[in-house]
Amino acid sequence: MRVLSGIQPSGTLHLGNYFGAIRQHIALQDEHECFYFIANYHSLTTVHDADRLRALTRDVAVDYLTLGLDPNKATLFRQSDVPEVTELAWILSTVTGKGLLERAHSFKDKVAKGLAVSMGLFSYPLLMAADILIYRSDLVPVGKDQEQHIEMTQDMAGYFNNTYREVFRRPEPLLGETPVVPGIDGQKMSKSYGNTIDLFMPAKQAKKRIMSIKTDSTPVEEPKDPEHCNVFALLRLMAPAEEVAQWAERYRAGGMGYGEVKKRLVELYEEQFGSKRGTRDEWLARPADVEDVLAAGAAKARAEAQAVMADVRDACGIVTATR
Amino acid sequence: MRVLSGIQPSGTLHLGNYFGAIRQHIALQDEHECFYFIANYHSLTTVHDADRLRALTRDVAVDYLTLGLDPNKATLFRQSDVPEVTELAWILSTVTGKGLLERAHSFKDKVAKGLAVSMGLFSYPLLMAADILIYRSDLVPVGKDQEQHIEMTQDMAGYFNNTYREVFRRPEPLLGETPVVPGIDGQKMSKSYGNTIDLFMPAKQAKKRIMSIKTDSTPVEEPKDPEHCNVFALLRLMAPAEEVAQWAERYRAGGMGYGEVKKRLVELYEEQFGSKRGTRDEWLARPADVEDVLAAGAAKARAEAQAVMADVRDACGIVTATR
Repeated sequence: MRVLSGIQPSGTLHLGNYFGAIRQHIALQDEHECFYFIANYHSLTTVHDADRLRALTRDVAVDYLTLGLDPNKATLFRQSDVPEVTELAWILSTVTGKGLLERAHSFKDKVAKGLAVSMGLFSYPLLMAADILIYRSDLVPVGKDQEQHIEMTQDMAGYFNNTYREVFRRPEPLLGETPVVPGIDGQKMSKSYGNTIDLFMPAKQAKKRIMSIKTDSTPVEEPKDPEHCNVFALLRLMAPAEEVAQWAERYRAGGMGYGEVKKRLVELYEEQFGSKRGTRDEWLARPADVEDVLAAGAAKARAEAQAVMADVRDACGIVTATR
Repeated sequence: MRVLSGIQPSGTLHLGNYFGAIRQHIALQDEHECFYFIANYHSLTTVHDADRLRALTRDVAVDYLTLGLDPNKATLFRQSDVPEVTELAWILSTVTGKGLLERAHSFKDKVAKGLAVSMGLFSYPLLMAADILIYRSDLVPVGKDQEQHIEMTQDMAGYFNNTYREVFRRPEPLLGETPVVPGIDGQKMSKSYGNTIDLFMPAKQAKKRIMSIKTDSTPVEEPKDPEHCNVFALLRLMAPAEEVAQWAERYRAGGMGYGEVKKRLVELYEEQFGSKRGTRDEWLARPADVEDVLAAGAAKARAEAQAVMADVRDACGIVTATR
């Protein structure tokens, strides 16, 4: 089975990204044929600074390699190294009604918030569908909130297949657990809320950040509810199950302060992410090696995409000179 | 000055296309550096039959060559041989508000008619802007009704240049005379009205078509108004000015039947288009030569486009492996 996922280089990766997606991406490399692309075309909808986009694009590659992505197992590449996706997005647009895009939750949310929507934001489900279909992907790991995009992709594949002939494989969502990852203020951890704990912060900064996680004011001696605690929610993601159970008991028993759990979280963060700062620095110091990984990934992905596009063009009558 | 224009392969070319655009395109090859592309990506919004699109794409090339396009002077190519235009369309979409596209006359017309609009139809001004900007075009020959598209293109170029840096040249419309070319029923000649006189119809068919042009029922002996006559409108486009003046006099004098003018139109059609049927058949019999023209045009156009795209990607931070 071919698994496809894209990672937007639109901000420094944080624990929310890790537990919401990256961890699963890396686990999947042992089970399936994985294609992971760094979605830099998509980032253009939000990042309008060239140097920043370049740095963020590189950082996604470096962070994935640091976190254990094995380029011999998974194919990691930049979206822009397969520019055919934009051609396919156009072709899909000619068989897709405007109404479908207007029903996208993400678009409706933006309109409801009164935001001025760019055409890129409005039409990005087309590019996303092209990303998925161009590699004949079988499975797309998504959270519940992203499921509609897979349905839209299925719709677009159907529109094309019905208009011309059976070219696209129908992708299915791969619904993983989508843990709630609270940010330090208790809202969903998200770059846009400024509440993130980034993956490779300097130790001192990470500690400060974790110690500042918002908790309630229950006094030390009283029992506490682990199910309504931001610190516990993160601990549950990072500690072994047995340890999590012990902490839950201590919460309920009372006599435990939040500072104590936070300190344990700092340790866990250091074990799991802090310990990899060195590896990350090494990758950063070897940009040519990172580029080699991306170039090899791109070559493999592009060959797949070009085969599909030859079929797409033939099906709809787009003639091209031999390239 | 670089002139750019696109020709949609969405139907057999007819007198309306010729006097509205093709004639000017061919004249311009002696004055400017001309890039003419066969807009097959655009045709996907209306033609959903692969064999038909392939045939129409070839026919545009053959018809232009037949009508005097000189590939040593003008650059003729297929839009799809420069797929970078779709990449640029995406990039422009990320700096362009949805509202701009909603203000497009062509979109509003479709909504007013209650038509279900595809995303391709809605967003085609983005692809059109990309077509224009990717070759750093100075001038775009357009009729009055197309002027808004050039303004939208100017706007998009400005959005990009303001967001990043000065990359795009500002194109200007080249407003030619846009003669009214009536179809055989008196409405504007258009494939969608089924009222066209195609450029290389067999002689018998062309005659039948021309003889069936709608006229009023003024009796032969009475004076007639040349300014309100579909036959005269076509004659004016095809006959020398002196002859046109003579016919106008005869209209006003009375004693002349419409059949007489129609017969003269048939002659003029045969002189100007019928006489080229042989040349057209020769081109049709040499598909490899047509392909050579298009491939050479594509190579030249693509080199220009790639230089511009390198600049675009650098300006917005899209990194790619060396291709």
